[in-house]
Amino acid sequence: METLQINEVAPRDGFQSESRFIPTDQKVALIDALTATGIARIEATSFVSPKAIPNLRDAAEVVSAIQRRQGVDITVLVPNLKGAERALACGVDEINLVMSASDAHGRANLRMTPEVSLQQFANIINTVRGSGVFINASLSTAFGCPFEGNVPEARVLDLIEQQLALGVEGVTLCDTTGVANPAQVSALCAQVLKRFPGVPFTLHFHNTRGMGLANALAAWQVGITRFDASLGGLGGCPFAPGATGNVCTEDLVHMFEQMGVNTGVNLPALLEASATLPDLIGHDTPGQVGKAGSADRRHPLPAQA
Amino acid sequence: METLQINEVAPRDGFQSESRFIPTDQKVALIDALTATGIARIEATSFVSPKAIPNLRDAAEVVSAIQRRQGVDITVLVPNLKGAERALACGVDEINLVMSASDAHGRANLRMTPEVSLQQFANIINTVRGSGVFINASLSTAFGCPFEGNVPEARVLDLIEQQLALGVEGVTLCDTTGVANPAQVSALCAQVLKRFPGVPFTLHFHNTRGMGLANALAAWQVGITRFDASLGGLGGCPFAPGATGNVCTEDLVHMFEQMGVNTGVNLPALLEASATLPDLIGHDTPGQVGKAGSADRRHPLPAQA
Repeated sequence: METLQINEVAPRDGFQSESRFIPTDQKVALIDALTATGIARIEATSFVSPKAIPNLRDAAEVVSAIQRRQGVDITVLVPNLKGAERALACGVDEINLVMSASDAHGRANLRMTPEVSLQQFANIINTVRGSGVFINASLSTAFGCPFEGNVPEARVLDLIEQQLALGVEGVTLCDTTGVANPAQVSALCAQVLKRFPGVPFTLHFHNTRGMGLANALAAWQVGITRFDASLGGLGGCPFAPGATGNVCTEDLVHMFEQMGVNTGVNLPALLEASATLPDLIGHDTPGQVGKAGSADRRHPLPAQA
Repeated sequence: METLQINEVAPRDGFQSESRFIPTDQKVALIDALTATGIARIEATSFVSPKAIPNLRDAAEVVSAIQRRQGVDITVLVPNLKGAERALACGVDEINLVMSASDAHGRANLRMTPEVSLQQFANIINTVRGSGVFINASLSTAFGCPFEGNVPEARVLDLIEQQLALGVEGVTLCDTTGVANPAQVSALCAQVLKRFPGVPFTLHFHNTRGMGLANALAAWQVGITRFDASLGGLGGCPFAPGATGNVCTEDLVHMFEQMGVNTGVNLPALLEASATLPDLIGHDTPGQVGKAGSADRRHPLPAQA
């Protein structure tokens, strides 16, 4: 049976959106708890400028302090060459480059068009190549842009092709603002799997409009086995106030395990880790299985009046 | 292109769970607004004992006062013969009988085993038959029981067969406590469509563990075109505190419309109706598209620093 590979992004995508800095030792304790669940990958932090995202200013300390375990890859987001060099110095398993599929989002979020991002990828890859560190690239707004709207499938395919030509080894398709629908996911995932056989594709969904798990189901039905997800559903979307963030890891694991699909993750341990979040971040999380319990949960019969 | 038929259950399943009584004129105004969206069916109330559910004590007044529109069927929940007689006197398009697929849930919720429920169905159907009112039956815990756990598929199929033999014309399969998963939904829906061709089946999902839209997608993929849903996602689950209720109507309509599936529902009008709920019920709702806006929404580019 094929096993889903889940990449836990709460320590990066989640914590960067929080209003307060999570102390380094608490970040490390959470990542260690996640490692113990048997999850395949953890995006532990971002080697971004401390000025740009002060919440992740302790990136090097976090990566140096966490426990490493065979079978659990530590990946980090890397926005530029300097970040890549810092990441390599700490000893990570993977770096995750990031660019946008739409000009407007690229300019707004990274101050770079996709073409400029690709040039920067080339420089980073020149430095990283040969280090043994896996090079992944995330493609934001692959299912639509909050400013431009539709991003043509042909444009997405072309950008993936250019990434791979530069030496990118794995690609994450990101539904950055939660606009993807299952029909679109099914179509694009089938396309990329057919056109780029052997390339590990990861799908990154936000649950902004409630479609996160439906989109994951649609992707899995056409052959996608790698997903980003965030403990408790952490991670905001600045263009959807009040809406939830990333697909929630425990809700995703629960759904697939209930379907009989192996995720390799110990769900009770994952739920325990998620239960520590409200104290850590100072507010409730949108995750639902943590509140309701697994579908296997039995309740005592109510007393008859 | 086949059109989805959505049955709006907030005025019944939603309002019965609220802590306060919604004034009759406000219920009527909401149902009229829902009728104007073009939705296929509205479960307007329940002709239950006013002592059992005081929130719906105005069932007859509500049904008598609402505007009727060609193509929008008004259905009401009917728990017993007396309720059926009251419903018939008000002139409804459909009655919805209810029973449980599991003994324990039947006893806890209705004080009746499935077998006793079926006997009662026979009495009600004797009274309703020939009136022109469509007879639907809802089967609670069809995907699992919070007390007993697994409900065998064979038991569900057998109960449906007995319902149909008594004169039930349509069946709603209810995931009462949000335990169904897409693989299970796909399997059971394919079974019932094959074994009972021509019978209109409706699927009723709760989003308790976040799987509501994924389950609706799975059901639709095997041929189900009728869904219950609740405006704003109203409707609680007493066994999952803090978790959300029924699948949210606007989130369901939004997903299918984004997929290119016609629901016949005017989404902006539906979102306007949903936006009136917080004032009506005194709290926020779990619906997400109401907060985030449609996936087609465009945001202005942020100013460059």
